[in-house]
Amino acid sequence: MRAVGVIVEYNPFHNGHAFHLQASLKAAQADVVIAVMSGNFLQRGEPALVSKWQRTKMALLNGVDIVFELPYRFATQNAETFANGAVSILAAAGCQYLCFGSESGEIEAFQQTIHFFESQQDSHKKNIKHFMGSGVSYPKALALSYKQLSNSDNYLDLSRPNNILGFHYIKAIHEQRSQITPLTVARKNADYHDEHFASETIASATSIRKALFADINSPSEINQYVPEPTRQLLHEYLNQYGLYHRWENYWPFLQLRLLHSSPEELKEIYEAEEGLENRLQHAATEARSFQEFMERIKTKRYTWTRLQRLCVHILTNSKKINMEGSKRAGYLRLLGMSERGQEYLNKMKKEFALPLVAKLSSFKDEEINLDLKAARVYAMGVPGPAKKFLMEQEFKQPPIIIKK
Amino acid sequence: MRAVGVIVEYNPFHNGHAFHLQASLKAAQADVVIAVMSGNFLQRGEPALVSKWQRTKMALLNGVDIVFELPYRFATQNAETFANGAVSILAAAGCQYLCFGSESGEIEAFQQTIHFFESQQDSHKKNIKHFMGSGVSYPKALALSYKQLSNSDNYLDLSRPNNILGFHYIKAIHEQRSQITPLTVARKNADYHDEHFASETIASATSIRKALFADINSPSEINQYVPEPTRQLLHEYLNQYGLYHRWENYWPFLQLRLLHSSPEELKEIYEAEEGLENRLQHAATEARSFQEFMERIKTKRYTWTRLQRLCVHILTNSKKINMEGSKRAGYLRLLGMSERGQEYLNKMKKEFALPLVAKLSSFKDEEINLDLKAARVYAMGVPGPAKKFLMEQEFKQPPIIIKK
Repeated sequence: MRAVGVIVEYNPFHNGHAFHLQASLKAAQADVVIAVMSGNFLQRGEPALVSKWQRTKMALLNGVDIVFELPYRFATQNAETFANGAVSILAAAGCQYLCFGSESGEIEAFQQTIHFFESQQDSHKKNIKHFMGSGVSYPKALALSYKQLSNSDNYLDLSRPNNILGFHYIKAIHEQRSQITPLTVARKNADYHDEHFASETIASATSIRKALFADINSPSEINQYVPEPTRQLLHEYLNQYGLYHRWENYWPFLQLRLLHSSPEELKEIYEAEEGLENRLQHAATEARSFQEFMERIKTKRYTWTRLQRLCVHILTNSKKINMEGSKRAGYLRLLGMSERGQEYLNKMKKEFALPLVAKLSSFKDEEINLDLKAARVYAMGVPGPAKKFLMEQEFKQPPIIIKK
Repeated sequence: MRAVGVIVEYNPFHNGHAFHLQASLKAAQADVVIAVMSGNFLQRGEPALVSKWQRTKMALLNGVDIVFELPYRFATQNAETFANGAVSILAAAGCQYLCFGSESGEIEAFQQTIHFFESQQDSHKKNIKHFMGSGVSYPKALALSYKQLSNSDNYLDLSRPNNILGFHYIKAIHEQRSQITPLTVARKNADYHDEHFASETIASATSIRKALFADINSPSEINQYVPEPTRQLLHEYLNQYGLYHRWENYWPFLQLRLLHSSPEELKEIYEAEEGLENRLQHAATEARSFQEFMERIKTKRYTWTRLQRLCVHILTNSKKINMEGSKRAGYLRLLGMSERGQEYLNKMKKEFALPLVAKLSSFKDEEINLDLKAARVYAMGVPGPAKKFLMEQEFKQPPIIIKK
């Protein structure tokens, strides 16, 4: 059976994702689609709108055959680490292809960019050091250096988030000497971070979340941008838990953590940097919301995303010592499957390069403990008695099976 | 000027406290009453109903002349440590007398009990070890040993909380070689932990709190047991902050802290003991409320109070290393004063044995940082925007002055 891998967050699953899935199947001529999906906390350093279990259902009802969780150690990370974890999972699960969305839909520009970087490594490193010395963030320095060195239309526009991710997927494939063939399909017209609706059927997840929060009880505005199962599953989640998760739900917890910790303790947190801890602690005594907190701590040097990721690590108490480790994942955590996905697993699992984890209790591991902790912390966002159900789900929920 | 000291929590100030104040003034023939009062977290390991500032107002409006805060390092502690801190403050502030409430109102029994313990030290230590080996708590072992050794009506009934406190006050005076003369007055008839109203005007603070929480918006049931200023100040606090503080307000914070910490981190918390951390963490994943949590962790070995104090230390992240130190307080934190109190301070402060701290920002000290942290954590119990005011009060509030 031929499998194509996709790397996703589905926050929430929308029509653009459905288009990407169909295009990926077609491009790879594949029998099954395997998704590596972020768990409850996402690459941008935010809690997912709804739990990974609900998003797994969205994925399966919309055509994904297998959903593996991208472990916390990789999910809430910069593009490079995120890509390394995700690619290692797809490779271990026997995917021949990885298909990602990009602006152009042309894989050559990615390949050329990789080769270009390899040939210009020394100048590039020097450049990045120089630009960061002037006080800009790492991604900004990367883009500036690249612009200066490349100076040609053959190369990627690395200021586009999807291009950066694609670039790192291919780089990870190279570095891991993986047999995966990378493919890319052109994205339909919605900018990654677009906050407004621009097309009739395609909208960014950002704009969909914005519309959802604008009027949480009548989300009809999003209907034309998401498939029916997404609509239903969002509705069901809101009924069960009374909210869609967002940072403000976790703000009091973050605030307390900052107020009762010593600077020394905060320094141990992953991504904490010298001097930042005092800034965070001071802002925590002043700010009345997460939004206000972020505005107080933001500087030119650190991107909003970078700071949000640090906040997630503070919230989950993930330390440098917990997050260190291999660039590759250590297990395949199965969140759900279609019947075809089940067939694929039955046929292929003996050849998987990593242990397949269908039940949390059957697998003891430092890395998976971070996922368990993240799930528990995520559940703390729910104020009522449903919190307990969400917390226990991490242990009790068997992989979700959807019969098509 | 002659000063009598009292050691109090005023949670809230009631008619029994008013009686004790008048009786203390009279017994000592004193000009001023100086109260050492627990801050926002109390000896039983609970948040105070209302902030220390509001309770300071209660104290001053009801006849206290000076209120010093009993620092966190002593307030949320067993009777012995609590007494040592409080006595050291009264001594440093020049009190000639300490007057406490007791069941009998006779000081001789306390003195005799101290002497008795001193003469029986070795047998007593052996006994305690023996009883604790059989699995009972320390206070229980203390009482059992004492009962076995004393066997006479001349000695105190140490199963009564007020007697235990009084015993430790006098012991602290002895051990600190203080010049303070201890006095005691008989308490009016309400048992320390009584949950029901038994008299017309005197009720325990426990029963008053119970009545308050039973119907938070119409507290008329308590009117006959508290002086008018208490009634008004409680009402004012409820209006401003929307709640009276109790453990359930802090439960989600405690729960998260237990869920995201490693057992190694929990072991560093003050009063944490080997093996208890796993028990706490497991209960945190199961319990839906603080009450349920406590019922799950309770054992014969640990008293409810002892466990609640541990929970306060987890909440405030107070570690063994933070709580170590001298048996005596390091400063006199002035929370408020009457005009007469002000006069006393002006006359006497040059002779004070400890620095007088009227403004938090003017005094840098490890021990007072614990008070600041406790005040901030306490403010986290307030859900709305008033939280910020309460949090900032710790820094901005000058000592309260009440003109009589």
